[in-house]
Amino acid sequence: MSAETAFAGVVGAEHVLGPARLALRDPGWCAGSQGAGLLVRPGSTAELAEVMRVAAAEGLSVVAQGGLTGLVDGTWSAPGQAIVSFERMARIVDLDAAQGVAVVEPGVTLAALDAALAPLGLMAGVDIAARDSCTIGGMVATNAGGTRVLRYGMTRASVLGLEVVLADGTVLDLMAPLLKNNAGYDLKQVFIGSEGTLGLVSKVALRVFARPQGSACALVGLEPGALGAVMVALRAGLGDGLAAIEAMWPGYYDTVAGLIGLTRLPMAGQGLYVIVEATGTSDAAARSALEACLEPLLEAGLLADAVIAQSQADRAAIWRIREESGAIDAAYGVALSYDVGLRLADLQGYVERLTARSPAPPLVFGHVGDGNLHVMFALPEGVERAPFDALVYDTLAEIAGSTVSAEHGIGLEKRAALQAALPPPVLAAMRSLKAAFDPQNRLNPGKVL
Amino acid sequence: MSAETAFAGVVGAEHVLGPARLALRDPGWCAGSQGAGLLVRPGSTAELAEVMRVAAAEGLSVVAQGGLTGLVDGTWSAPGQAIVSFERMARIVDLDAAQGVAVVEPGVTLAALDAALAPLGLMAGVDIAARDSCTIGGMVATNAGGTRVLRYGMTRASVLGLEVVLADGTVLDLMAPLLKNNAGYDLKQVFIGSEGTLGLVSKVALRVFARPQGSACALVGLEPGALGAVMVALRAGLGDGLAAIEAMWPGYYDTVAGLIGLTRLPMAGQGLYVIVEATGTSDAAARSALEACLEPLLEAGLLADAVIAQSQADRAAIWRIREESGAIDAAYGVALSYDVGLRLADLQGYVERLTARSPAPPLVFGHVGDGNLHVMFALPEGVERAPFDALVYDTLAEIAGSTVSAEHGIGLEKRAALQAALPPPVLAAMRSLKAAFDPQNRLNPGKVL
Ligand SMILES: Cc1cc2nc3c(=O)[nH]c(=O)nc-3n(C[C@H](O)[C@H](O)[C@H](O)COP(=O)(O)OP(=O)(O)OC[C@H]3O[C@@H](n4cnc5c(N)ncnc54)[C@H](O)[C@@H]3O)c2cc1C
Ligand SMILES: Cc1cc2nc3c(=O)[nH]c(=O)nc-3n(C[C@H](O)[C@H](O)[C@H](O)COP(=O)(O)OP(=O)(O)OC[C@H]3O[C@@H](n4cnc5c(N)ncnc54)[C@H](O)[C@@H]3O)c2cc1C
Repeated sequence: MSAETAFAGVVGAEHVLGPARLALRDPGWCAGSQGAGLLVRPGSTAELAEVMRVAAAEGLSVVAQGGLTGLVDGTWSAPGQAIVSFERMARIVDLDAAQGVAVVEPGVTLAALDAALAPLGLMAGVDIAARDSCTIGGMVATNAGGTRVLRYGMTRASVLGLEVVLADGTVLDLMAPLLKNNAGYDLKQVFIGSEGTLGLVSKVALRVFARPQGSACALVGLEPGALGAVMVALRAGLGDGLAAIEAMWPGYYDTVAGLIGLTRLPMAGQGLYVIVEATGTSDAAARSALEACLEPLLEAGLLADAVIAQSQADRAAIWRIREESGAIDAAYGVALSYDVGLRLADLQGYVERLTARSPAPPLVFGHVGDGNLHVMFALPEGVERAPFDALVYDTLAEIAGSTVSAEHGIGLEKRAALQAALPPPVLAAMRSLKAAFDPQNRLNPGKVL
Repeated sequence: MSAETAFAGVVGAEHVLGPARLALRDPGWCAGSQGAGLLVRPGSTAELAEVMRVAAAEGLSVVAQGGLTGLVDGTWSAPGQAIVSFERMARIVDLDAAQGVAVVEPGVTLAALDAALAPLGLMAGVDIAARDSCTIGGMVATNAGGTRVLRYGMTRASVLGLEVVLADGTVLDLMAPLLKNNAGYDLKQVFIGSEGTLGLVSKVALRVFARPQGSACALVGLEPGALGAVMVALRAGLGDGLAAIEAMWPGYYDTVAGLIGLTRLPMAGQGLYVIVEATGTSDAAARSALEACLEPLLEAGLLADAVIAQSQADRAAIWRIREESGAIDAAYGVALSYDVGLRLADLQGYVERLTARSPAPPLVFGHVGDGNLHVMFALPEGVERAPFDALVYDTLAEIAGSTVSAEHGIGLEKRAALQAALPPPVLAAMRSLKAAFDPQNRLNPGKVL
């Protein structure tokens, strides 16, 4: 019996896709995602467990596929593997507004969850621009970050419970939908952010939050050296109302503004552009808190300029340059993108060293409140990636307390960078974890480690 | 060479304590904590690593000791073991206000950290009543909760980086002091909450937060059936300003009020007493937000009564009954205490079933915003514990999505309850984790699993 037939016996023939049907599907953000030529769509945890047993019996390793928005080739697959897609496991199982908990199957997209939560005045903690396609399972598997990490943490911070299927088909019920649970080792933590290499996420209990009643937004210009003092003042002045701090260095700001054809810039000529988002009990309350916080900073000269959005249109104009990084991908033959993390005090020094050493100007923006920089290089067709990898990571390695991946994960793309960055005992401990949960290396082999 | 001599060679003879000196020390909240008769005090990570190698060579297992405030006999020790105390590793290494990060050695107490943070306008996310004695290392090892979990999460949510020493003396540097770090498996998660059974915490990078500029506090009385609707309204009305929701059932409220001799109660005759804490940009702002939120609930009849504190004295009076649970321990021969977690919708049914089935009235209070109930029984000397354990845990087992330990952990005390509560595959997976990181069972053997 072929593997296809065996899988069809579990999920039905219409849910086993071969090369021909796969060729018609969008490979998403990973060009090699359909390489296995064999995709199985279980409709339930029981089917998924049986699929894992069949895969083991057939000697196939398994690559999980969510919304294919991952940015590090984590869904790359090859012959000899079976892709497991979660598109049929996409039910919202329960929304408990009193408890503040949503229970969902892994294939639910972030946008679908948000649409279900909005009428209840609730929202997910995490938000990312890939919301229409990315799945909750994929977000758990990559511990996705986004623009609200400062207030709500990474995806990990919202995961209250998981159901996980191991390589041998064992189902781990780690689902208690509770804010607090110290009953033994917190096994779900092992699977969050493990990129499909330790177990497959088959159900998720997520903490959800009240949608803020009001919010306000400002764009400020400052000298990079003032960033630390400004952060302290924002944290002290806005407290729990501080929702996001996003920065754009001038190279990025000017390049994107040019590419998208913005003629009226909200602000120009600054050393650093920073978006500050605040929440409050009303838009007006958030705005006046933001004003009260920014005014003394302007007076003290820590800020060179500040614009507070007075309308949704103002707000959209402020966010537009930050959100349209895709314009760089679209305009250049090669648009390299990195996702590093550093201490606040080290950010500017890192950008300056990169700028001094690079043959092409780095375009830098990021979730600066979290120390997360996205560094891009916009290059003509044919330019090689390797020297830029070396530049970015070697320069990073000079700085203690930095990370080669703040939020996108490792996948296939950053394996070499990870190996070079981490001390051997840490890499060895990661390998022990892999060996403990996937001893036969059947889950997304060759990724992460 | 005796074990004492070998340890003395590493840390100096004055830091190796035998039975005589141990007998003079306070055993803290665990009567059997000094049972090993041998305690070693390393002064640095390097010494700790060497201590672990000596212990291995001498065939001794190791029990970590922090502030001895743990409530589940996690520090119990016996001959054949060496206690490692962190009292000499108690330096605050770095406070970075701009980054919002504190780096500390494990022996620093929560109170000492708070004293260092307060002048900077900062505070730790977690707060527990044991703050003067409990150590950051112990809080990480038990993933401590407390009254601010609703807003800041358990200790886990604040841990940005760890340094861990394994049973064989290997030092794992997992210290990146960053809010975001997705560089491979997040190994520190494995050690948080593992109660000294997988590795010893030798350094911690903690996220710290702005001290709220203002706060307000109310005591409300309601019928337990209204709790769900009230929670939804509080979350929606206070948003990020909702800091704590603590409940007291009447049996607890009246008993403690009587024991501490309160004659003027803030409120009486209610089905449930709930403390609500709110934060805001000033005390006045927090108070008016709280008022605006509670008023319609009173009008709608969801609340039977509400008192908003107008002064610090009012606030202290409201919190006093909630905080003086120790009066029960002091007044009765046997004061049993449990730490269960349930879904909000199941809390009242659980309390009612316990009340109906118990030979003595359960005294119940807890972090109800987190679904965490502390159930106490105040009994005369000589009463046996076992039937109460059975009552509490068997009744809990009837309710899906519950936990035998919301925040105190398992230690020695709740091992049987854990074994009975968890599905065999989950227990097996926990054992794999133990085997992967402590294959020779040298770290706090017999605890948790
Ligand atoms: C426009 C855009 C913006 C983005 N912004 C951000 C951002 O701000 N922050 C951020 O962190 N990321 C961001 N990302 C990256 C990406 O969206 C997230 O990592 C997302 O969480 C991936 O979800 P997915 O469903 O698309 O997963 P996929 O891409 O399908 O898979 C990602 C990885 O998870 C594994 N996986 C998927 N589902 C499961 C499952 N059920 N069980 C086990 N493993 C599984 C896969 O094998 C793969 O290794 C962005 C991506 C795009 C395209
Ligand atoms: C009055 C009072 C109130 C409390 N309130 C709460 C509360 O609200 N919420 C809550 O969650 N808990 C509470 N507790 C429980 C307790 O205070 C916490 O669990 C605390 O975190 C334990 O810290 P400690 O330093 O005293 O640890 P210890 O009691 O010394 O040790 C606890 C466990 O951690 C291990 N350990 C200690 N240090 C290390 C280390 N460096 N590395 C590895 N393992 C280590 C020990 O081996 C032991 O298993 C309370 C306790 C008391 C007495």
